[in-house]
Amino acid sequence: MIQNGEEEKVDVEAEQSENHVRPTPFRNLPSIQDESINTLNEDSDLTSSYKRRSSIKESFEPGSLNVLSAKYESLDYDICENHLMLDEERKKGYRYVVHKNVARWFTFLLIGICTALVACIIDISIEELSYIKYGTLSRYVDKYITQGNKLYIPYFLYVLFNIIPVAIGATLVAYVEPIAAGSGIPQVKCYLNGVKVPNVVRFKTLVVKSIGVVCSVVGGLAGGKEGPMIHSGAVVAAGISQGKSTSCRKDFNVFRYFREDHEKRDFVSGGAAAGVSAAFGAPVGGVLFSLEEGTSFWNQSLTWKTFFASVISTFTLNVVLSTYHGVPGDLSYPGLLNLGQFERFSYEVYELPIFVLMGLFGGILGSFWNHINYKLTVFRIRYLRKRWVKVLEACIVAAVSATVGFLMMFSINDCKPLGQDPTKYPTQMYCGDGEYNVLASIWFQTPEASVRSLFHDPRNTHNALSLAVFVFFYFFLATWTFGLSTSNGLFIPTLLTGAAWGRLVSVALFYLFPDSKLIHPGKYALIGAAAQLGGVVRMTISLTVIIMETTGNISFALPLIVTLIAAKWTGDFFNEGIYDIHIQLSGIPLLPWEPPPLTSNIYASEVMSHPVVTLKTVENVGHIVELLRLTSYNGFPVVDPPITDQRHVTTYGRIRGLILRSQLIVILKKKLFNETAEWWDTLSASIFRDEYPRYPTIDEISITEDEKTYSVDLRPFMNSSPYTVLHNTSLPRMFRLFRGLGLRHLPIVNDTNEVIGMVTRKDLARYRVWVHRGRMGLDELLMSKEI
Amino acid sequence: MIQNGEEEKVDVEAEQSENHVRPTPFRNLPSIQDESINTLNEDSDLTSSYKRRSSIKESFEPGSLNVLSAKYESLDYDICENHLMLDEERKKGYRYVVHKNVARWFTFLLIGICTALVACIIDISIEELSYIKYGTLSRYVDKYITQGNKLYIPYFLYVLFNIIPVAIGATLVAYVEPIAAGSGIPQVKCYLNGVKVPNVVRFKTLVVKSIGVVCSVVGGLAGGKEGPMIHSGAVVAAGISQGKSTSCRKDFNVFRYFREDHEKRDFVSGGAAAGVSAAFGAPVGGVLFSLEEGTSFWNQSLTWKTFFASVISTFTLNVVLSTYHGVPGDLSYPGLLNLGQFERFSYEVYELPIFVLMGLFGGILGSFWNHINYKLTVFRIRYLRKRWVKVLEACIVAAVSATVGFLMMFSINDCKPLGQDPTKYPTQMYCGDGEYNVLASIWFQTPEASVRSLFHDPRNTHNALSLAVFVFFYFFLATWTFGLSTSNGLFIPTLLTGAAWGRLVSVALFYLFPDSKLIHPGKYALIGAAAQLGGVVRMTISLTVIIMETTGNISFALPLIVTLIAAKWTGDFFNEGIYDIHIQLSGIPLLPWEPPPLTSNIYASEVMSHPVVTLKTVENVGHIVELLRLTSYNGFPVVDPPITDQRHVTTYGRIRGLILRSQLIVILKKKLFNETAEWWDTLSASIFRDEYPRYPTIDEISITEDEKTYSVDLRPFMNSSPYTVLHNTSLPRMFRLFRGLGLRHLPIVNDTNEVIGMVTRKDLARYRVWVHRGRMGLDELLMSKEI
Repeated sequence: MIQNGEEEKVDVEAEQSENHVRPTPFRNLPSIQDESINTLNEDSDLTSSYKRRSSIKESFEPGSLNVLSAKYESLDYDICENHLMLDEERKKGYRYVVHKNVARWFTFLLIGICTALVACIIDISIEELSYIKYGTLSRYVDKYITQGNKLYIPYFLYVLFNIIPVAIGATLVAYVEPIAAGSGIPQVKCYLNGVKVPNVVRFKTLVVKSIGVVCSVVGGLAGGKEGPMIHSGAVVAAGISQGKSTSCRKDFNVFRYFREDHEKRDFVSGGAAAGVSAAFGAPVGGVLFSLEEGTSFWNQSLTWKTFFASVISTFTLNVVLSTYHGVPGDLSYPGLLNLGQFERFSYEVYELPIFVLMGLFGGILGSFWNHINYKLTVFRIRYLRKRWVKVLEACIVAAVSATVGFLMMFSINDCKPLGQDPTKYPTQMYCGDGEYNVLASIWFQTPEASVRSLFHDPRNTHNALSLAVFVFFYFFLATWTFGLSTSNGLFIPTLLTGAAWGRLVSVALFYLFPDSKLIHPGKYALIGAAAQLGGVVRMTISLTVIIMETTGNISFALPLIVTLIAAKWTGDFFNEGIYDIHIQLSGIPLLPWEPPPLTSNIYASEVMSHPVVTLKTVENVGHIVELLRLTSYNGFPVVDPPITDQRHVTTYGRIRGLILRSQLIVILKKKLFNETAEWWDTLSASIFRDEYPRYPTIDEISITEDEKTYSVDLRPFMNSSPYTVLHNTSLPRMFRLFRGLGLRHLPIVNDTNEVIGMVTRKDLARYRVWVHRGRMGLDELLMSKEI
Repeated sequence: MIQNGEEEKVDVEAEQSENHVRPTPFRNLPSIQDESINTLNEDSDLTSSYKRRSSIKESFEPGSLNVLSAKYESLDYDICENHLMLDEERKKGYRYVVHKNVARWFTFLLIGICTALVACIIDISIEELSYIKYGTLSRYVDKYITQGNKLYIPYFLYVLFNIIPVAIGATLVAYVEPIAAGSGIPQVKCYLNGVKVPNVVRFKTLVVKSIGVVCSVVGGLAGGKEGPMIHSGAVVAAGISQGKSTSCRKDFNVFRYFREDHEKRDFVSGGAAAGVSAAFGAPVGGVLFSLEEGTSFWNQSLTWKTFFASVISTFTLNVVLSTYHGVPGDLSYPGLLNLGQFERFSYEVYELPIFVLMGLFGGILGSFWNHINYKLTVFRIRYLRKRWVKVLEACIVAAVSATVGFLMMFSINDCKPLGQDPTKYPTQMYCGDGEYNVLASIWFQTPEASVRSLFHDPRNTHNALSLAVFVFFYFFLATWTFGLSTSNGLFIPTLLTGAAWGRLVSVALFYLFPDSKLIHPGKYALIGAAAQLGGVVRMTISLTVIIMETTGNISFALPLIVTLIAAKWTGDFFNEGIYDIHIQLSGIPLLPWEPPPLTSNIYASEVMSHPVVTLKTVENVGHIVELLRLTSYNGFPVVDPPITDQRHVTTYGRIRGLILRSQLIVILKKKLFNETAEWWDTLSASIFRDEYPRYPTIDEISITEDEKTYSVDLRPFMNSSPYTVLHNTSLPRMFRLFRGLGLRHLPIVNDTNEVIGMVTRKDLARYRVWVHRGRMGLDELLMSKEI
């Protein structure tokens, strides 16, 4: 009898899985009954038991650090090994593998070259426009100061010269492509972490960013062009490797085999490195930046390619810029930021404590900077939401920058004799003949040039008062500027602030030890700049190397690292790095490197979203269409049909595979149904790549009523061995699996391999550890559909 | 009826799993019937169906590249989350997490300091002994050359001065600790990859290595002290972090919480980086070396700590060596290898093709070097197996080195005027008064000093003939030396060979373009050295950075990388890098970064070892003891007892967890049986750490006959949610899981989660892709118990 019973059961199962029309009507499935399901975005399953426990706030004040946004999706780094891919592998063989690898190196070469060219265009534009702007201003000031002190004329001119470019840049950013605001480093970091940030690597973003950065630097904002270069490099890499641009609706039909998240990620991390390399002339620093800040997936051969792209990038930039500056063969312009050649600083062991103290001070100042910027950003998120308000704010900052600058050079009469002019536009102001106004020379040039001045100007160029006033104002200006609706980075203003107070330190030290030969103001300016930057962005290795490479000074590694570690530790005591603050404010579900500690007692069954919407191996087309319309999930476990036994207990379906929304969309679009069988011979894995990365929505697919009664066999398309874990798996184990392999969906199964839940990025990212002021704890973030 | 039947089945299951005495006698288990099982080593299951298909050669000629040794085990990087660990977490809280993190930083600090101190001791010993040796030799040569040309006396003295230290070093290595031979870099690389190489990080190894390296460098072998420093750093790190030494039977009872493979690995990678940093004065290079060659598990915070240890290491070394050299505050000795300060080389774009050609040549020479060394190593493996033969070979090489050196300085009369002496021991030989013999100056100093001479000596110091002869002989000497039973590295001899032919290139170029100002011989020596080294070891990024940091010359990044990439590509066309060749010859199952391409059609069911020896959740003690005695497996799946149904079909057991041999041993040793229950209250996770890393064997555990009837509940001790995959999972998917998470055992389950097989490191490592001469393919390696 038992035998018979078992056989009966098997029969039912077999029948069901062959059954083309689903027996249970879709609306009655338990998983679809949930009320809120069709309003949700993506793989966030707000309905899980766990999330019910921790109150979901449907509406709350924006600007919280403890909220995850529901709108960010994951990228899909796991390779879908379906039948089509296996077919392709079999057909193409090792020759194809070699060919693809050569194409990959070639692509990295192109990425290096193009990133450098973009950097050159930006740099030369800024150079030319600044020349016109500051040359004119300098002349006007000196002209009107003699003509009866009508200084309001050059002042208004200054304000105008600031506002016009800034207004253009801000308008572009606010109205055309808001993601182009800021440095783009947080966005690139998130992308490399595996979060799909919309539009972040689009051609349109690159155009807006490039024009925007020229505008904001020429507009005299306290911002630099270096951060945006990293973003530009990332966009260039994505564009070249994909061989097509969605913004331009152009498909070059090259590199089609790179059209998947996994490949694209590798190129983007190379592009980001090439961007750093172009910005700072720091190829090693670029690779390390890409590793430290971005790439979650370390791989030896990728690193070699990344390094290659970085070297090519700095080389190309060097050739072009050297030619532009009239010294073609000289190769003396390795990066956009040229801090000039440092002589070999020497330092004594007893100077190290001073550097540590400076690092500590930099950490405090940096975390204060971050705090102000955080408050400002929250204010912006809450109240400055209209586009024209954003543009207006940028213009106000531009005007204030001009005003502050003008007031300073007007009120502090810091004169130095002409001769070894650190600036191209020496302005006399109220100084005597043969002298120039030092503050005017700081303000009437791009911030890069000012940093260079502070690093290299001989001792006594700047007096203590002007430095102090400058630090005070520039500090606030810089923190006000970062986060405006303009494309600019914070490296340069931060370096400038730090270099200024570093020089102040050298003045103080010189006052204390007037006989010491070691107190070189440039050395202290460098340490101050490093401390300030470390306190704001909290990077250590890559920053050390970038500064070493930019200054060409390798013997200074130890002081730099000591300073940066002190700054990082001090800063971390108070708050997060500025990029992390902005990422948290955006609610992006970034996965950290390690799972939060002490969470082994949180199990998959608590974390997972359930019930899960599943599909059968052979599924009704109408059901699929309805499912895609009504839910917003991006991955569906494919299961054997659940069985209802004699006791009316419905089991879960046993897992057979995993299929993505994008794959279902393509199947529907290409009409790969069982009833229309002529497509089988021409089928290949490229059908999915052709649509990548922007698949149509379900509403754009037309399916006739007839077709809705058809069925589709999902088995050749699905990933037939997805990684799964048992329901009693702990959070750290899931985290390591998810993070280490770059997954997007992790089905949770019970003892008999039946799917009982699904874990996605947000389920893991919502457990976040915090460490502040020596204490530590675990946050459970809220989930919001609003931010 | 069906209902009843089902309930009956459940009852049987429940009864069985509570049953303390195993119903089936152990000998009758299918998995144990296999004939060869008790002769096998570790987690190699030679009995799998797959391996039966591919003929297992039980005996074959040693020295093949296509054999995996069965003797290497995996390290266990996966954290075993059992009840004890959860208990510990709950008790200790976040304060403990913070404390452990502080301890970790402190440990890295100690690692940096101690690695540097070891390096200093080695360096100063070599310096002092070399001073005596070469000073004496130089005097004797000049003395006997005037006394009737009795040059055979200094010659025999030279031979003696070479043989005595080499004999001491070789004897130590051959008789005391053979793993201390060579540079140790391949061994450290394997350790970091996750292979348990016996004795590799023991204190005894460090002692032998340190003495050995002093002996072989003082003995005038063509070897350097830099490679061994990396190994020394690794040992120092392992020793300090564990707070105990097995060699010395000393337990300091500190850092007990670091006693697991996972933590130890992190420290060892920091130690290796600190070693590079001390050897070359290259902290960034150290981190990159550790990343490029070793660490498989990238992690941001680990990298920061590694960098910290590296910086501390070079700083400590600098302070100590500067003091030793009498310039205490000067900090001019950042590394053991001091190539002197380079002036800023400038290069023109049109020189780059020359560099590429040199890289190409270096690649060819390097792969030839590797090939000779490969053939030699195979010869050694086959015929030079006795210890005294190994010592003899080392002495012969020492004597030949002396002979070659002496013949060269005797026969080539390359004289230069005294004055800017590049050596401490200028020897006159047949030169006129006020002149010195150039070749004697190359041979009568350590190879490091010779490299420095070649980089910095002014043009025309060396004539073409002496350089050519030197390159020829030194090339063969170096390849003969590497792989001897002595502790020495190949960096310096390779750099020396390369620098010599690089200088030759500059001589040739100068002949062609006598008016060019760009042809600086030091520049070409540097490029030649990089090309040769790149051709031999095939590293790119870390080598670039190491050379940049050692020479203090950052502007030379592009030429270096171009050269290194050319050398690597050319070399890879012919064979593998030297480290990989040695690893393959040892049959170590190293897992590469990526799964072999085109292997998606190989499934888990083909790869896995089966049948699997499993344990029940509550198991009989006698059974466990017998199992541990008869098998040599290191991990056992814990399963629900298999059920035999009415049709006499036995199912597999459903997976409940995974338990390690080491855990079972500890359970048996501590007698944690159900029948002796008083231990429960005092139980903690530390019982396993106390025995780490050398657990007793099963024969060392005494279990009475009475105790054999007891039972043990494995559930609190086992890892209750091991990562598993389905039998239809492809090789690349398993590979990524295994490699990415550092697993040791991967149970393979069927549709209903019953364990049907086990995959371990060797099952994956045996599929190896090869790429040579533009072609590519897949090797399936054989498995041997002999090597």
